[in-house]
Amino acid sequence: MKMNQPVTRIRVRFDETDQQGVVHHGNYIRYFEVARIEFFRSIGFSYKAFEAEGFRMVVAEIQVKYQRPAYFDDILDLFVDIEKMGSASLTFKFQIKRDQEPIALGQAKLACLGSTNRPIRFPAIFREALKAAACQKGD
Amino acid sequence: MKMNQPVTRIRVRFDETDQQGVVHHGNYIRYFEVARIEFFRSIGFSYKAFEAEGFRMVVAEIQVKYQRPAYFDDILDLFVDIEKMGSASLTFKFQIKRDQEPIALGQAKLACLGSTNRPIRFPAIFREALKAAACQKGD
Amino acid sequence: MKMNQPVTRIRVRFDETDQQGVVHHGNYIRYFEVARIEFFRSIGFSYKAFEAEGFRMVVAEIQVKYQRPAYFDDILDLFVDIEKMGSASLTFKFQIKRDQEPIALGQAKLACLGSTNRPIRFPAIFREALKAAACQKGD
Amino acid sequence: MKMNQPVTRIRVRFDETDQQGVVHHGNYIRYFEVARIEFFRSIGFSYKAFEAEGFRMVVAEIQVKYQRPAYFDDILDLFVDIEKMGSASLTFKFQIKRDQEPIALGQAKLACLGSTNRPIRFPAIFREALKAAACQKGD
Repeated sequence: MKMNQPVTRIRVRFDETDQQGVVHHGNYIRYFEVARIEFFRSIGFSYKAFEAEGFRMVVAEIQVKYQRPAYFDDILDLFVDIEKMGSASLTFKFQIKRDQEPIALGQAKLACLGSTNRPIRFPAIFREALKAAACQKGD
Repeated sequence: MKMNQPVTRIRVRFDETDQQGVVHHGNYIRYFEVARIEFFRSIGFSYKAFEAEGFRMVVAEIQVKYQRPAYFDDILDLFVDIEKMGSASLTFKFQIKRDQEPIALGQAKLACLGSTNRPIRFPAIFREALKAAACQKGD
Repeated sequence: MKMNQPVTRIRVRFDETDQQGVVHHGNYIRYFEVARIEFFRSIGFSYKAFEAEGFRMVVAEIQVKYQRPAYFDDILDLFVDIEKMGSASLTFKFQIKRDQEPIALGQAKLACLGSTNRPIRFPAIFREALKAAACQKGD
Repeated sequence: MKMNQPVTRIRVRFDETDQQGVVHHGNYIRYFEVARIEFFRSIGFSYKAFEAEGFRMVVAEIQVKYQRPAYFDDILDLFVDIEKMGSASLTFKFQIKRDQEPIALGQAKLACLGSTNRPIRFPAIFREALKAAACQKGD
C-alpha cells in the first residue's frame, strides 16, 4: 500500500485551536483516529461493528512529529498506511497535509483485545481485508 | 442548600483555550460536570460506583450564560446547587467564579436510567444523601 | 429562512463518545459551532476572514435539549437557522438529526466584539449577506 | 532532577473517557501539558507570563507509551523531568502513575518561538530557573 491519496479530509474546527492561534497539538491524535477508522471503512472493515462484537483495538504507542502549524478552517488531507502487521500488533503511519504542504507525521501501534480484555490475534476477517486491499494496490 | 462555598476549584488548562485567547465556551459544560461529580462526592454519593452498578444519569437539558471570559491558568471556583428534585429528574444550578468575579451561570436537568436504558426514579440511597445534605445546611 | 435542509453533516468521532457508549453531551456545543461556521460560509461570509480583520463573535448564552443519544460513527445532519437578529446580538437555532430522527435542539445567542473587545453592531457586510440569504429563501 | 515526586495530580473527568470505558488515549497529551505547566510553576517560571510577553513554546515531537488503562475518577500522579536541554530545544520526559502503578510514559520535544514566530534560544531567565532547580535537587 502507498500513501498516494488521502483516505479522508477534514476541516479544522474552531474549538480545535488554542490561544497560540493554531490547532492544539493534542488534536492530531484525534485526526489520526479519524484517518484509521476511514481506512478501515475503505477496506470494507467496520470498526463500529468490530466493537459491537466485543473486540477492541487499543493504542499501545503513538508518536507525532509536527511539521507546520495548522489553522482554523484549514482543509487537511489525512493519509494513512500500514507500516507493519504482526500477529498481535498493527503499526500505522499517518501523514497530514494541507494542499501539498506537510503538516504532521505520525505512527501508532495498536493491539487487539478480545471480550475478556486479553490481547488476541487480529481476527482473520480483518487480516484478509487488509491483504486484499494490499493486493489491489499492487504491494 | 446554598451556594455559599465552591464544591471544588480547577485551573484552566492550555488546551481549553481557543484562538480568541479565552476558554472555549464548550468547556464550561465539562466544568459543570466536574462540579456535579464533586457535589455527589461531597454528600457521600459516588457517581463512579453508581455507574458500576448499572445506573446512569443523563443530561436532558443544559444552559449556560457566559458573563466574563476566563483565561489560561485562571483558578475557577465551581459552585453547584440543586434547583429542583423531582421523582424522575434533578435540576442543578451552577456558578463559576474567579475570585469574586462571576464568570458563568448554568443549569442542567438530569434524568436517571436503569440497566435497561429506561428512565427510573433516582435511587433511594441517592435521594436520602441529598436530603441529609440539605438538612445539614439548614434548608 | 427555514430549516429545510442541513447546512452540513458530520460523522461522530470515536473520541467524542464517553463511557456511557454515547456521544458526550458537551460535544453538541462543538457541533453547533461547526453548523454556525458552515452557515456563514453558505451565505458567502467567511468567519475566518472576519476574525482575521480583528472582529469576533462570542457566545453569550447557549442551550441544548437532548432528544436521543447519538453513537460513534453516526452521520448527523446539522440544521441551523436565525431565530432573531438584533443590532448587537444574533440568536441561532440548531437542530441535529440522524436520518429523520431528532437527536438534539439548541439555541445560541451571540454578540459581536470589535478590536478593542467592546461590543459592536454586527458589520453591515454581514447583515446584508444574511438579508440576501433570507430573501433568496423567500422569508 | 529526578522523578521522585509528582509535580501535580489530577482526577480523571467523565468526558475524558470513551466508549471503551477508559480514558481516551488522546487525553494523555493534555495531561502531559498540565504536568509541564506545573513543572514550570514549581521552578518559579510562569508559562502564562511567558506567552504574555510574546514568546511561545511549541511541541515539535511527542510520544506516548500506554502501559495500563486509566478510568473515570482515577487520581493520577503526573511526573515530569527534563531529558535534554539544548540551546533551541528542550526535551521532557513524563510518567503517569495511579498509586504506584505505571499508566503511561511520554516524551515531548519543545522549541521556543519569539514574537516574529522564529525559533529562538530559550530565554536566559528560563534556563537559569531550570539550572537552579537542578542544583537544588542535587543533579
